[in-house]
Amino acid sequence: MAPRRMAPERRRAQLVEAALELYGRHAPEQVSVDDVTRAADVSRALFYRYFSSLHELHVAALGAVVEAMLRRLALPAEGPLPERLRAALAVFLDVAEQHAAAYVALLRAGSVISTGETGALVDEVREHIVGLLRERGDVPDGPLVLMTLRGWVALVEGAVLTWLQERTVPRETLLDWLAGQMVGALAVTARFADG
Amino acid sequence: MAPRRMAPERRRAQLVEAALELYGRHAPEQVSVDDVTRAADVSRALFYRYFSSLHELHVAALGAVVEAMLRRLALPAEGPLPERLRAALAVFLDVAEQHAAAYVALLRAGSVISTGETGALVDEVREHIVGLLRERGDVPDGPLVLMTLRGWVALVEGAVLTWLQERTVPRETLLDWLAGQMVGALAVTARFADG
Repeated sequence: MAPRRMAPERRRAQLVEAALELYGRHAPEQVSVDDVTRAADVSRALFYRYFSSLHELHVAALGAVVEAMLRRLALPAEGPLPERLRAALAVFLDVAEQHAAAYVALLRAGSVISTGETGALVDEVREHIVGLLRERGDVPDGPLVLMTLRGWVALVEGAVLTWLQERTVPRETLLDWLAGQMVGALAVTARFADG
Repeated sequence: MAPRRMAPERRRAQLVEAALELYGRHAPEQVSVDDVTRAADVSRALFYRYFSSLHELHVAALGAVVEAMLRRLALPAEGPLPERLRAALAVFLDVAEQHAAAYVALLRAGSVISTGETGALVDEVREHIVGLLRERGDVPDGPLVLMTLRGWVALVEGAVLTWLQERTVPRETLLDWLAGQMVGALAVTARFADG
């Protein structure tokens, strides 16, 4: 049995960790409260002291993935843009691969897991990346540039989602292609005076 | 008062229409059952014979917008790709503008309206557009091409969402820019052998 006395924050984190580990083997929608309590070696009563529902645990677990993403993502300050993008993309892909099941559950359209709450979490990652690109990506200001950056983030998100499920191209190709798409999209936008 | 006897399908459509009209003036999350019954001039009891909840009406109304989009969207068979894309984009933008509040409610991340069900509706439009592009867009097959098409659809969706809320560039610029982004993205992908 797990230690009976544990600080509330640690106990909560332990349950989230158990959920994330289970998501590595099963889709989140197939993980039950019993699965989690068994994996964490705690009672159902204890589970419900920390989470009012399974959905609340899902949101907390997905929040932990989002936090890892926000903590680890950075855009190097030096070097040519494609190389710096590639480095940032490699980190994004690492975190997404490490929590592949949660990532897929979070972003797949029509997922039973996705709600307003998880949508807001996803949006936080998107805005973080757009912020990094605006601050360090040497891009001009302007409405079309902003739409270009947001569009590229959506491309990355969707492509990684497909790739995690199908692995149809080598990892290195995916990274080069995504970096190339950003450079290409900015070049198209640069042709527009309203950019 | 509205006619007391009406075929069930027509009555249901009447309520959906009343909701869509209200969404033109208020965000869907601010529209109540009372607002809808008042606009359609029917009783609450009648409303609940057709919809078990306000959420069900939201989904039906958004479904009507999706249906209009699917019915009207087409990619002309003849002409240079940028021009054909531009024509299809103009139709997309027309439908989105006509139902701007519903469109924004449906696609905004973290919206209280968005659920698995509305996510599935949005996905239907996405897959329809990707299908049109694959059939008639003169694009090669391949995993990176597919990701390019999906990424471009996400760009269109996001850009139109931003544009409906902020109108920061002229409509014609938006259409040219979106068509240009598709052509540019395909050109980048063509450089990859795994495309």
